[in-house]
Amino acid sequence: MCELLGMSANVPTDICFSFTGLVQRGGVTGPHRDGWGIAFYEGRGCRMFHDPRPSAESEIARLLQRYSIKSCNVISHIRQATHGKVTLENTHPFRRELWGRVWAFAHNGKLKGIKRRPLKFYRPIGTTDSEHAFCWILDAVRERFPTPPKRRETLWRFLEGLLQEVHGLGTFNVLMSDGRDLFAFCSTKMSWLTRCAPFGAVALTDTEMEVDFERETTPNDVVTVIATQPLTSNEVWNPIAPGTLVVFRDGQPTEVRSDGRMESLAVCSAVEAYERQRSG
Amino acid sequence: MCELLGMSANVPTDICFSFTGLVQRGGVTGPHRDGWGIAFYEGRGCRMFHDPRPSAESEIARLLQRYSIKSCNVISHIRQATHGKVTLENTHPFRRELWGRVWAFAHNGKLKGIKRRPLKFYRPIGTTDSEHAFCWILDAVRERFPTPPKRRETLWRFLEGLLQEVHGLGTFNVLMSDGRDLFAFCSTKMSWLTRCAPFGAVALTDTEMEVDFERETTPNDVVTVIATQPLTSNEVWNPIAPGTLVVFRDGQPTEVRSDGRMESLAVCSAVEAYERQRSG
Repeated sequence: MCELLGMSANVPTDICFSFTGLVQRGGVTGPHRDGWGIAFYEGRGCRMFHDPRPSAESEIARLLQRYSIKSCNVISHIRQATHGKVTLENTHPFRRELWGRVWAFAHNGKLKGIKRRPLKFYRPIGTTDSEHAFCWILDAVRERFPTPPKRRETLWRFLEGLLQEVHGLGTFNVLMSDGRDLFAFCSTKMSWLTRCAPFGAVALTDTEMEVDFERETTPNDVVTVIATQPLTSNEVWNPIAPGTLVVFRDGQPTEVRSDGRMESLAVCSAVEAYERQRSG
Repeated sequence: MCELLGMSANVPTDICFSFTGLVQRGGVTGPHRDGWGIAFYEGRGCRMFHDPRPSAESEIARLLQRYSIKSCNVISHIRQATHGKVTLENTHPFRRELWGRVWAFAHNGKLKGIKRRPLKFYRPIGTTDSEHAFCWILDAVRERFPTPPKRRETLWRFLEGLLQEVHGLGTFNVLMSDGRDLFAFCSTKMSWLTRCAPFGAVALTDTEMEVDFERETTPNDVVTVIATQPLTSNEVWNPIAPGTLVVFRDGQPTEVRSDGRMESLAVCSAVEAYERQRSG
């Protein structure tokens, strides 16, 4: 299996802190040694860094832990190969252009029979079942919507159906984005939290590091982090129920139900929630 | 205008030396301050690094000057914006997938009226005339060859026609690759050289740096470097005639003529050629 990390924020924010926690799992506190990758959206552009080497030993990963790239949408992945060799082209996130936007996709899990699904527009470059699933999903979106639908909820509902369909083939924890929305589909395991006022000091689980977000932020910042497994020890993480799509925009989560209904989820300071739990 | 740098080699080779020369032109010895980018093919995969900041001041560019990424196909670009704002999405090289391969494209020059050409499959993400030209070319290739043609020369001839057509709209110096072939189209200015046995010590024009390739190579290595302007002072560079496409594979150049004929160009050690010129 692999580990996923995503961020959705209402102001460009660096992900150095959470990324530092994640990369430890690529060879130190976790077995995910088969490469890693990260996508940062900046405006309409998207910067990606990939390395087929373990994140804990990667010089590029080291640079990204100290070099602050600010973004409102980030997707990262560290890989433990189950399907497809350890090569650069099999390293997530994958990317394709649709409607003049960059779509990025990272997957944790294993799918049965996805490669038998025929593809039309997009072709995999590597050999993973993940990239095939991504191409199949974008093919379907493109076919249904040659131009972007007017209401974003129309797209969300359609994507929810596609994600459920692939989920039927196995384990399909996914982070996906077009640069505006961050789509988080939980198949077996995924949690999120929001950092917003009141901020506080937060400590990583995987390595000795603490950051006081009070000093790094302004009172209106809303920064939501999504991860396979909680990365911090003194914040409350919200698990996503298996088989559920949550869409994040500007840090705000909306649950998209299979019956087409939408529910905006309330956000609150994860560190304050933890303190309240502890004292209460 | 911008500067281009490409490499085609028969063994995975790092481009640290030539890249070090190029980045000086992004703010030190040259005015190309509006971002830079580089694409390294590794197997079927392609790693790209982009930065909208000047290359001479970029921390990522600094990493790449010492961090050896070995590749048989590299395309790099430093930008002096003529068309389109200085943003990440306007930073070359651009990339798209066709036939399950990554295509990369970088352009130096200015085109008139290219944006009036309708696009079908690929859409620009940024606002440059360059990316529009790239999308138009790939659209045409995809339309003509839904699957890759059996003989690579068939593709080369078709591409030559497309490149000539865009060249008719202005200045169109281009480096483009599908990971196997490196297509170098000269509109106004482009030169190449080959590093092969006998190797020797080579000095950069733009900064004090010398490398003895004798120590870094094996006798069978063939490494061809293509650049807008020569990067070294003691090697013979071969200019490409304006309006000409040269295709490089494994470091070996082939000129593709407009009448459909092909000519394999002879390669020889650029540093030996220089010594011979000097002494003769």
